[in-house]
Amino acid sequence: MIILTLNCGSSSVKYSVFNTAHGTMLARGIVERVGLTGSFISHTVGTHEVKIEIKCLNHKVAIEHVLKLLVSSSDGILENITEVNAVGHRVVHGGEFFIESTIINEEVEDVIAELSTLAPLHNPANLQGIQAARDVLPKIPHVAVFDTAFHQTLPEYAFRYAIPSRWYDEKKIRKYGFHGTSHFYVSQRAMQLLGDSMKKSRIISLHLGNGVSITAIKDGKSIDTSMGLTPLEGLIMGTRSGDLDPGVILYMMRSENLSPEELDAILNRKSGLIGITTTSDMRDIEKKATEGDEKSHLALKMAVYRVQKYIGAYTVALGGLNAIIFTAGIGENSPTFRNHVLKDLEFLGIKLDEKANKKAIGGKEDQIISADSSDVKILVIPTNEELVMAQDVENVILRRNIKIP
Amino acid sequence: MIILTLNCGSSSVKYSVFNTAHGTMLARGIVERVGLTGSFISHTVGTHEVKIEIKCLNHKVAIEHVLKLLVSSSDGILENITEVNAVGHRVVHGGEFFIESTIINEEVEDVIAELSTLAPLHNPANLQGIQAARDVLPKIPHVAVFDTAFHQTLPEYAFRYAIPSRWYDEKKIRKYGFHGTSHFYVSQRAMQLLGDSMKKSRIISLHLGNGVSITAIKDGKSIDTSMGLTPLEGLIMGTRSGDLDPGVILYMMRSENLSPEELDAILNRKSGLIGITTTSDMRDIEKKATEGDEKSHLALKMAVYRVQKYIGAYTVALGGLNAIIFTAGIGENSPTFRNHVLKDLEFLGIKLDEKANKKAIGGKEDQIISADSSDVKILVIPTNEELVMAQDVENVILRRNIKIP
Repeated sequence: MIILTLNCGSSSVKYSVFNTAHGTMLARGIVERVGLTGSFISHTVGTHEVKIEIKCLNHKVAIEHVLKLLVSSSDGILENITEVNAVGHRVVHGGEFFIESTIINEEVEDVIAELSTLAPLHNPANLQGIQAARDVLPKIPHVAVFDTAFHQTLPEYAFRYAIPSRWYDEKKIRKYGFHGTSHFYVSQRAMQLLGDSMKKSRIISLHLGNGVSITAIKDGKSIDTSMGLTPLEGLIMGTRSGDLDPGVILYMMRSENLSPEELDAILNRKSGLIGITTTSDMRDIEKKATEGDEKSHLALKMAVYRVQKYIGAYTVALGGLNAIIFTAGIGENSPTFRNHVLKDLEFLGIKLDEKANKKAIGGKEDQIISADSSDVKILVIPTNEELVMAQDVENVILRRNIKIP
Repeated sequence: MIILTLNCGSSSVKYSVFNTAHGTMLARGIVERVGLTGSFISHTVGTHEVKIEIKCLNHKVAIEHVLKLLVSSSDGILENITEVNAVGHRVVHGGEFFIESTIINEEVEDVIAELSTLAPLHNPANLQGIQAARDVLPKIPHVAVFDTAFHQTLPEYAFRYAIPSRWYDEKKIRKYGFHGTSHFYVSQRAMQLLGDSMKKSRIISLHLGNGVSITAIKDGKSIDTSMGLTPLEGLIMGTRSGDLDPGVILYMMRSENLSPEELDAILNRKSGLIGITTTSDMRDIEKKATEGDEKSHLALKMAVYRVQKYIGAYTVALGGLNAIIFTAGIGENSPTFRNHVLKDLEFLGIKLDEKANKKAIGGKEDQIISADSSDVKILVIPTNEELVMAQDVENVILRRNIKIP
């Protein structure tokens, strides 16, 4: 099948086109400044990239531009837009309603709209993209792929917070988790790579990008994950605090008279690595730490320590450990960070092959970086969320016996 | 030495009298409703308890009543109040200033007053007690014993939050930890009980009372603990939420227009066990869970699961584990809770002796409840914070060569 994937933000549309028969990406790109002045498309086919200035009032116009480009004589990859069999839409919050990728109809749109209260920055933009794409491509199936769906297998004792029951019963305040597509993809790849030994598997996957999350995966199912109701909970991220004494928030609200909006901005955009140092970029922090900068050293050590503690916690949650996976920007490209995280964990049967670790950079191929004597396999698996989306769209269509043109 | 210990709340004065030469408690009691109508003292000598109605305007009057009672012919234990050699005062927050128990002078009082911003419910009352007692007993040394002091050995990467540096530099927002006297006492006892093998020791101590905290102790020093800037962080407690996505607080503030005061009350007094069920009492919850009550079963499972995850995290923080200690109400008296926590942890070398576990109730004596084959020793050690306070007061006086009358 030829699948178009779309990931719509409030002023952007990311897209890619896959041929699932070969698992190959035919093209990808992004429309930026949707609804603003100075809109443009960056479009890539293979190693060839073009940047085209456009006028782009809204998501619908943006998607029309993309479709034109896909069949253009100079930068296109299709003869005719009817070759596209289906569209996959990334949707951030699926709440408790969506436990898997789902064919979109009016009812599904309504639920995604209702869930906007839980993801006010993301779901409305995702929905605008869905409505625009269904307008422009009305004859093919559209499928919603949710960031939260993979984590809907969490047991209740892991997803509930110890807050008044009413907050869960009426407001659905609970842990949802995010990066689901990524954790699902890399854990599936690990199970394929490691073969039969992984059928009964206890895996920890570490998605270490600008957003950071860790997931405990038992026999292929997510049983716990570090992000919560929102992507603010858990590990230290580029600009997000991660775990924090709730008392700190109450204290700062009183002490500096901060509004919820101001606190939200500080904890989501001015905390984490950039709160401790002056950059959110782990590469800069690693470099400066080596050069003796104290704040960078502290930030690196804090980030590493928190990851180590979660590995301990999730090893207990899983009742043991067979494999650890590193993925996303830092996970795929920083042998230093991986080494810091793992070097104290030999007593858990975790032993890094330092040479293999150093070689595993660039995010091109899956690699095993544990020593042969390590009880726990350590893998670096480049994440590929667009590919998972495309595969998931195909799976839903085949499973549901949906006719495609 | 004869030591009087005082623990002053806003409307109460808890006291005890120790003879440190024999480590025996001579008397203990509490003055309740200080500054209110209907004040009374409950006073206990051995197994004999009396309740006396009094008029009690303030902390000074309360302490004067206590001193009179200590030398009274019917319920007294001293011939003359001059037999008291020193007074130990429990102070909740010692900030970064006090790394150990400290002789109180004007300067120390000033710092305790300054630290009231970090503990607005506790330090002002503690200070009122100190000032009243120094007025009434001006000739003997007064020593402040801090709940936070034992945790001042935490490394910076463990006590800092990933929030703007300014919040730490200017406002001292960081993890302090509490229950320090209890964690110190039980870890010292464990090292004595287990002997030489514990000189290089990795211990996890679990203070499971109405407040709950867990501490990682390496070679006798606290290296991490679950409570933070405030006692709200960490494990699920009787009425406190423990760890929570900071996003939940931001969400609820907007959704229900809650003030910091309202949120504080909900998270500190209406969350935790009582938020999920209708009681904060673990005994009731265990009983109802056995009878099939779903909410009680969930609350118990959540509380246990969080403890298990912290044990995993702290085992990694310690780089291994030699002993786990249970103390305080639930820790000393619930074989069921201890069994739930430990039963899935055999892969960490933790093996309970179920018979010994069942027998260890009542909080009377220290007991080892691990199986002989267990790599990790498991202990139940009744906490005795008043005794530690008295011992610490004596230690400070001897170490500093303070003359006592």
